[in-house]
Amino acid sequence: MEDVLKEKKVMHNFNAGPSVLPRSVFEQASKAVLNYNNTGLSILELGHRTKEFQAIMDEARSLVKELMNLDADHEVLFLHGGASTQFMQVPMNLLNENETAAYADTGVWSSKALKEAKLYGNVKVVCSSKEANYNFIPKDFTVPGDSKYFHITTNNTIYGTQWQSIPKVDVPLVADMCSDIFSRQRDFNSFALIFAGAQKNMGPAGVNLVVVDKNILGKVDRALPTIMDYRNHIKEGSMLNTPPVFAVYVSLLTLQWLKQQGGIDAIEKINNQKAEMLYSAIDNSTLFQTTAVKEDRSKMNVCFVMKDPSLEKQFLDVAEQHGIYGIKGHRSVGGFRASLYNALPLSSVNYLIEVMKEFEKNY
Amino acid sequence: MEDVLKEKKVMHNFNAGPSVLPRSVFEQASKAVLNYNNTGLSILELGHRTKEFQAIMDEARSLVKELMNLDADHEVLFLHGGASTQFMQVPMNLLNENETAAYADTGVWSSKALKEAKLYGNVKVVCSSKEANYNFIPKDFTVPGDSKYFHITTNNTIYGTQWQSIPKVDVPLVADMCSDIFSRQRDFNSFALIFAGAQKNMGPAGVNLVVVDKNILGKVDRALPTIMDYRNHIKEGSMLNTPPVFAVYVSLLTLQWLKQQGGIDAIEKINNQKAEMLYSAIDNSTLFQTTAVKEDRSKMNVCFVMKDPSLEKQFLDVAEQHGIYGIKGHRSVGGFRASLYNALPLSSVNYLIEVMKEFEKNY
Repeated sequence: MEDVLKEKKVMHNFNAGPSVLPRSVFEQASKAVLNYNNTGLSILELGHRTKEFQAIMDEARSLVKELMNLDADHEVLFLHGGASTQFMQVPMNLLNENETAAYADTGVWSSKALKEAKLYGNVKVVCSSKEANYNFIPKDFTVPGDSKYFHITTNNTIYGTQWQSIPKVDVPLVADMCSDIFSRQRDFNSFALIFAGAQKNMGPAGVNLVVVDKNILGKVDRALPTIMDYRNHIKEGSMLNTPPVFAVYVSLLTLQWLKQQGGIDAIEKINNQKAEMLYSAIDNSTLFQTTAVKEDRSKMNVCFVMKDPSLEKQFLDVAEQHGIYGIKGHRSVGGFRASLYNALPLSSVNYLIEVMKEFEKNY
Repeated sequence: MEDVLKEKKVMHNFNAGPSVLPRSVFEQASKAVLNYNNTGLSILELGHRTKEFQAIMDEARSLVKELMNLDADHEVLFLHGGASTQFMQVPMNLLNENETAAYADTGVWSSKALKEAKLYGNVKVVCSSKEANYNFIPKDFTVPGDSKYFHITTNNTIYGTQWQSIPKVDVPLVADMCSDIFSRQRDFNSFALIFAGAQKNMGPAGVNLVVVDKNILGKVDRALPTIMDYRNHIKEGSMLNTPPVFAVYVSLLTLQWLKQQGGIDAIEKINNQKAEMLYSAIDNSTLFQTTAVKEDRSKMNVCFVMKDPSLEKQFLDVAEQHGIYGIKGHRSVGGFRASLYNALPLSSVNYLIEVMKEFEKNY
């Protein structure tokens, strides 16, 4: 333990969200708050109808298309709000009152999503892992062919589970990708709609990414509020109203960083490595154990507890003393949660493992 | 002109929104993006459930209460989105399908607001200045006593008009204060609901301030989406979901600055002075003239044109060469618009007047 304790205190941010972003992004963003691109103006006082901001918005949208390899039918929007807004906006735009949407219930966020959908139509929960405190991803289920769409949460932050493969279904697929977007390859064009609050892998809190196949829109009977109709945002190039300028800008910086790393393919390799290292350390430990079923383990959020729960407070204190930030588990699972988002360096994972090993040696 | 031209180029930001904020706010925000309050973490990676962010949210809400002198019935919320979201959220929360809301139509933003209200109930437009391209604030009108609420836009950014006094009505008053909140005293407790996108006088784009008398809530029959129900946000202390952390933080810094200036009373005096100076210069000019009716002139957005419209392009070029930023008028009014928000220094107004005078001398 002594060697580890002697190290210079650096923060290792394992928080589940808002989360670590690349250091270079913080540096660029900090500069832009004082003087954006030598305009003499702060990015915070820049009009959104200026050519400067138009360029930011255009590049951000086009980088998303490029990084996700989206086809021409898929539109990219940066909208106000977070996933909680999308829980309402998705059924409002896609589901008629007499129609049914299918939902997979894999945790708190899925439950919240399907609760909102019930305000707009019928909801069929086609599978659930609730009885097991959501520690696995359901495998055996059928999505009725007349479902208007099928909604999944690709990664379940609280429980540390993740859909390793996307189920093949015959209906439009809607995904809440808040906590694993841009972290691994998926066939993004196979989704009718993807949404993600920025604050894990993409940027700061305060902006939502929405990727939508425009062909699924305009098919509901209800009159939509202007600001809730995806078609209006598409028509206005994601500038229907004043966008969250700074959050879009920091998202752009993060997407640029991702591209520099080699895009999703490259970051996925590192993410796999980080996850394997930490799960392996836990599996080989006498003190720690994971909570999720092995095959469904999340590569973004590693949830683990101590075999002797009375030691947890002590380990948390030691971790905090070492600048390991944000690893307290969600109250519904307890223990610890180490979030390994794109911008978390491999060295931070190594460091956490070292601290765990040292702790184990001493007990 | 020569003297003015020789001056060192400094930016004078007259943009209508997003707009100038205090320099000290940019400096603090820039620092926090690198290292918030010596936590070793960027404000952008700080968890919203931490004691650090809780303190930011608590102080921001309590400063709004203090600066606006709000009573215990008025709750303060920082929500995602901008006014366009409130256009929908207000009637959704306050208006039943068979009930009627009264609206004053004083410009594009009022029109947009009342259009959304029609989705939720009946709308009675009790007055309008549309026929005069919204260049005045209507005085003679009656708000039916059975109106569920009466909605006004206190300041009309595009047309440069402003309600100088708030009409006395017997029904709950709802105000869109986007562009004059915190710029002048009002009896804020006389409003049932006030909303304002932050990006004029309060902070950066990406957060909405909502002040609501809690007694008017919970009276509609419809089931409300969780994220749209103000009561949920009140219950959760404006932390129902991940808030736009950075936008709330910068709003707090701006509110702290306002308090240091002496609060609304003090800033109102300076705002009055700035507006009087500029209107007086325009009134005394042979080239320029204002577009709004004198008694309804906005103290926030001074809209003016040139008597000879063919000179407008030339003046705009000269202004831009002098670092006068964002004074192009909205396309529906043309000419120029100088926005004099709280953080715009008196010296910038002086400078604009100098440039106008010099231009006039030369023609």
